[in-house]
Amino acid sequence: MTRRDQIELALTAAAVGAAALCHFADVTPVVTFIVAAAALALLARQVGTATEQLGSRLGSGSASVIQSAFGNLPELFIALFALNQGLTNVVQAALVGSVLANSVLVLGLAFIVGGLKNGPQRFDSSWARVVSMLAVLAASTMAIPSLAHAFHAPAAAHGEALSLVCAGVLLVVFVLTLPGFLRRAPGEEHEPPRWRVATTAVVLGATGTAAAFASSWFVTALTPAIHTLHMSEEFAGLVIVAIAGNAVENVVGIQFAARNRADFAVGVILNSSLQVALALTPVLVFASLLFATHLTLVFPTLLAFVLLLAGILGALIVNDGESTWEEGAVLVGFYVVIAASFWWGT
Amino acid sequence: MTRRDQIELALTAAAVGAAALCHFADVTPVVTFIVAAAALALLARQVGTATEQLGSRLGSGSASVIQSAFGNLPELFIALFALNQGLTNVVQAALVGSVLANSVLVLGLAFIVGGLKNGPQRFDSSWARVVSMLAVLAASTMAIPSLAHAFHAPAAAHGEALSLVCAGVLLVVFVLTLPGFLRRAPGEEHEPPRWRVATTAVVLGATGTAAAFASSWFVTALTPAIHTLHMSEEFAGLVIVAIAGNAVENVVGIQFAARNRADFAVGVILNSSLQVALALTPVLVFASLLFATHLTLVFPTLLAFVLLLAGILGALIVNDGESTWEEGAVLVGFYVVIAASFWWGT
Amino acid sequence: MTRRDQIELALTAAAVGAAALCHFADVTPVVTFIVAAAALALLARQVGTATEQLGSRLGSGSASVIQSAFGNLPELFIALFALNQGLTNVVQAALVGSVLANSVLVLGLAFIVGGLKNGPQRFDSSWARVVSMLAVLAASTMAIPSLAHAFHAPAAAHGEALSLVCAGVLLVVFVLTLPGFLRRAPGEEHEPPRWRVATTAVVLGATGTAAAFASSWFVTALTPAIHTLHMSEEFAGLVIVAIAGNAVENVVGIQFAARNRADFAVGVILNSSLQVALALTPVLVFASLLFATHLTLVFPTLLAFVLLLAGILGALIVNDGESTWEEGAVLVGFYVVIAASFWWGT
Repeated sequence: MTRRDQIELALTAAAVGAAALCHFADVTPVVTFIVAAAALALLARQVGTATEQLGSRLGSGSASVIQSAFGNLPELFIALFALNQGLTNVVQAALVGSVLANSVLVLGLAFIVGGLKNGPQRFDSSWARVVSMLAVLAASTMAIPSLAHAFHAPAAAHGEALSLVCAGVLLVVFVLTLPGFLRRAPGEEHEPPRWRVATTAVVLGATGTAAAFASSWFVTALTPAIHTLHMSEEFAGLVIVAIAGNAVENVVGIQFAARNRADFAVGVILNSSLQVALALTPVLVFASLLFATHLTLVFPTLLAFVLLLAGILGALIVNDGESTWEEGAVLVGFYVVIAASFWWGT
Repeated sequence: MTRRDQIELALTAAAVGAAALCHFADVTPVVTFIVAAAALALLARQVGTATEQLGSRLGSGSASVIQSAFGNLPELFIALFALNQGLTNVVQAALVGSVLANSVLVLGLAFIVGGLKNGPQRFDSSWARVVSMLAVLAASTMAIPSLAHAFHAPAAAHGEALSLVCAGVLLVVFVLTLPGFLRRAPGEEHEPPRWRVATTAVVLGATGTAAAFASSWFVTALTPAIHTLHMSEEFAGLVIVAIAGNAVENVVGIQFAARNRADFAVGVILNSSLQVALALTPVLVFASLLFATHLTLVFPTLLAFVLLLAGILGALIVNDGESTWEEGAVLVGFYVVIAASFWWGT
Repeated sequence: MTRRDQIELALTAAAVGAAALCHFADVTPVVTFIVAAAALALLARQVGTATEQLGSRLGSGSASVIQSAFGNLPELFIALFALNQGLTNVVQAALVGSVLANSVLVLGLAFIVGGLKNGPQRFDSSWARVVSMLAVLAASTMAIPSLAHAFHAPAAAHGEALSLVCAGVLLVVFVLTLPGFLRRAPGEEHEPPRWRVATTAVVLGATGTAAAFASSWFVTALTPAIHTLHMSEEFAGLVIVAIAGNAVENVVGIQFAARNRADFAVGVILNSSLQVALALTPVLVFASLLFATHLTLVFPTLLAFVLLLAGILGALIVNDGESTWEEGAVLVGFYVVIAASFWWGT
C-alpha cells in the first residue's frame, strides 16, 4: 500500500466519520446530505480501488466479474435505501443520471483535459466502438417502456409488466455477454497488485459496510434537504446521487485522457454507462419487487429522451474517432443545461 | 433446378395446400392464421428465389427493377387485402415492422450467427454505407407526418394531405435513384442461373398467385384470431405480418453473415428496409385511395419513434464498421422489448 | 474588383431599389415580401463576399472573428425587426430553419451537384468531423428547453429561465471555442484579396445598411403577405427567411462540391449551422430582453425534433465519410416534407 493509498483511505475514513457525526448528532439535514454525499463519492472510489486490487490477483476473467459486481455497490446501496423509502423518482433519475454523468459530463471533462494537454486525440480501438454500440442499444432498449407511456400506447397501461420484460431482457444480455465482452477489454494495462490480500479484503469489507451506512444516512437526509434547498427529487437523483455514486469513481477516465490514452479513457467511461444499463437497472427493478413501491422503467419522458440522446451522442462521438477540447466544452455545456432543466420540482 | 430447390418448392406447396384446407374447411381462425402465415413466409422466399433466377438471366440492370417490383409482392398482397378490410392499423404496423424485422431482428441474428462462427466481423464497403444512410434518411422522411400529428403541429389537421406529399417525395426519390443505386449493388456475386426460363416463369406465376390467395386467407383469419389470442392489431402487423412477409425471405442475409461476408449481409438486410420505405410505403398510400379507408403515414407515435430509432441505430452500426455477436444479442433483445410493447391492444 | 463582382453588386443594388420602390409605393404586400426577400438573399451574399475580402487582408485570426460577426448580419436584422413586432414564432422558426436550410437543403444540393459531376465523393477531413460533432451537440443543447416543455417536465413552467441558462451556456461555449476552432478551419484556400480596402469598407457599410432597411420592409410586409398566401408564420420563418438570409449565401458550399472539394463543402455548410446555434441564437435570446416580447428557446415541439434530427443526420452523414447524389436527393426530399409539414398555420 503506497503513501498515496494511505492518504486516500484516511481521507475517506474522515469523511465517513464526519457523515456519521452529522447523522447521529442531528445536524441540519442539508449539511448531513452534503457530507454524506462527499463520503459516498470517496467510498465509491475506494471500493473501486480495492476491487481493482482484488482483480489483479485473480486473473482477468474473475476480475471482470468481481468488478461488475462490486463496482456499482455504492449506487446499489443508495438505490435500495431510496426504494425502501418509496423514493422511486430519485432512483429513476439516478439511473439515467449515472449514464449522463459518465457519458456526457465525465467524457466532456476527459476531452477537455486530454485535448488541452495533448491536442486533438484519436481513439480508434475496436473495444471503444463495441462498448459505445452496446451502450446506445442498451439505452434504447431501456427507453422503450417510457416511450410507450409517453405516447399513450396501449402498453402504457401495463408499464410494470413491460418494465419487467425489459429488465429481464437486459439481464439476460448482461449474463450472456459479460464473460466474452469483458475479456476483450484491454487488460495488459493492469499494474501488479500493490496491496496484500488481507489488506484488500479488509478494505473491501470496511468500505462496503461504510457505503451501506453512509447511503442510509444520505437517503434519510435527502427528503428534508432537498425541500430546504428547493431542489427537485429528480435533480437530487440525476445530479447529486449520480455524481457521488459514479462520476468521482470515474476520475480514472479523465486521468487516462490526460496521459493521452484516449482509447482507454473513452472505453472505461462508456463502459460504466453500459454497466448501469445492463446490470444495475435490471437488478434494481427485480429487487424492488421486495419493497412496497415497485421500480418501473417508466421514466419521466424528458429523462427517457435525454438518456436516448446521450446514448446516440456517445456512439456518434466514438464513431467520429477523434476528440477535441471544444467538443468536451460543448458536452459539459449540454450536461449543465440538462441538469438545469431538472432543477425545478413539481 | 437442384434437389434442394425441389424440396423447398414441395414444402411451400404443402404449406399453401394446408392453408387452403384450413380456410375452406372453416378450421378455427387461430390455426388458419398460423398456417397461412407459415405459407406466406415460404412463398415470400420462393418468390425471392424465382425473381433472382429471372434476374440472373436478364442482366443486372433489369434484374434490379424486377427484384424491386416482385420482392415485396407478398407484403403488398397482405397489405392490399388488409386495406380492403379497413385494417389500416395492421398495415401501418406492418410497414414499420418490416423495417424493424430487417434492420433490428434479422441484422441482430446475422451478427450473432456471423460473430459466433467467425469472430468480430468488419464491413467497410461503400455500398453498405450508402444503403444505411439512404435508409435512415428515408425513415426520417417517413416519420415526419407522425411527428407533426404527435406534437399537435397545425399540420396534424392535414395528416392525409401531408402523407400524400410525403409518399410523393418518397416515390420520386425511388424512381430517380433506383437505376443508379441498384447498379452499384455488388453484382459479381450472382451465380449462373440454375432454373430454365420456363421453370422460372411458371414458379413465379404460381407462387405469385398462391401468395395472393394465402394473403386473402391470412387477412380473413386475422381479426378473429387476434381476438382469440388477446393480441393487438399492431402486434399482428408489426411482428407476424412483418416476419412472415419479410424476415424469412431475408434468411439470405444471415447466410451471408455465416459465410463471413458481413459487408454483403449488412447491405442486403438494410436494403430490404430501404425498399419498404421508398417503394412499398408510397405505393400503398396511393393504392389506398382506391379503397374506402385511406392509408396515411400518421402512425401511432410509438411506431414512428421506433422507426426513427431503428434507422438511426442501423446507420450507427454500419458507420461503426464492425459487428460482434454481443451487439447482435442486444439488437435481438431490443426487438423483443419493442414487440412486447405492442402486445397489448386498446 | 472583377467584372463579375460588379455585375453582382449592380444586381443587388437593383433588387434593393425595387424593394424600396415596392415598400414606399405601397405595392401589395405579397410583391414587397417577395422582392424584399430576393434583395435580402443577394445582400446576404454581398455581405459575405465583402467580409471575405476584409478577412483576406487581416490574417486568418481576425478574419474568423469578423466573418462570425458579419456573416449572420442579414438574419440578425430580420430577427430583430421581427422581435420588435412580436413575431417570436417567425424568429424561432427562422433559427431552426437556418440550421435546416444549411444542413439539409444546401447539403443535399451540394451532394447532388457534386455527385452528378464527380461521382461518389469522399470527405475525411478532421475539420468536417469536428464541425459536425459540435453542431449536433449544440443542436441537442438548444433543444432541451423545448423537450422540457413538450413533455411537461416541471421546468416547463420556467421556460424563460431555462432558455436564458441555455443561451448563456451556448454563448460561453461560443466565446471559448471561437479562436481555436476557427483557426483550425482550412485557411490556405484564401485567394489574395481582389478588392481595395476602401472598396471593401464602402461595400460592407452600404450592404449592411441596405440589409437593415430591406429587413425592415420585409418584416413589415410579412404579416399581411402570409395571410394573403395562406402560409403559416412558421413556414415564413422556416423556409422563406432561412433561405433568404442564409441559404443563398451558402451557394459557395455547392460550388465547392462541384469543384470536387467535398471536404470543404461539408465543413463550410455545417459550420453555418453551428454558428446559428452557438452565436445567433443566444444573441437573439439576450437581445430580446430589450423588447416587449421575449424570445425563448421553447420552440414548437415539431421544430425542436426536426432540429435534433437534422443534427443527428448531419453527424451520421459526415461520419459516413462519403456522399452520393442519391443521398443528396433523399436529403432534399426530407427538406420538402419538413417544409410541407409547416405550411399550414393554426
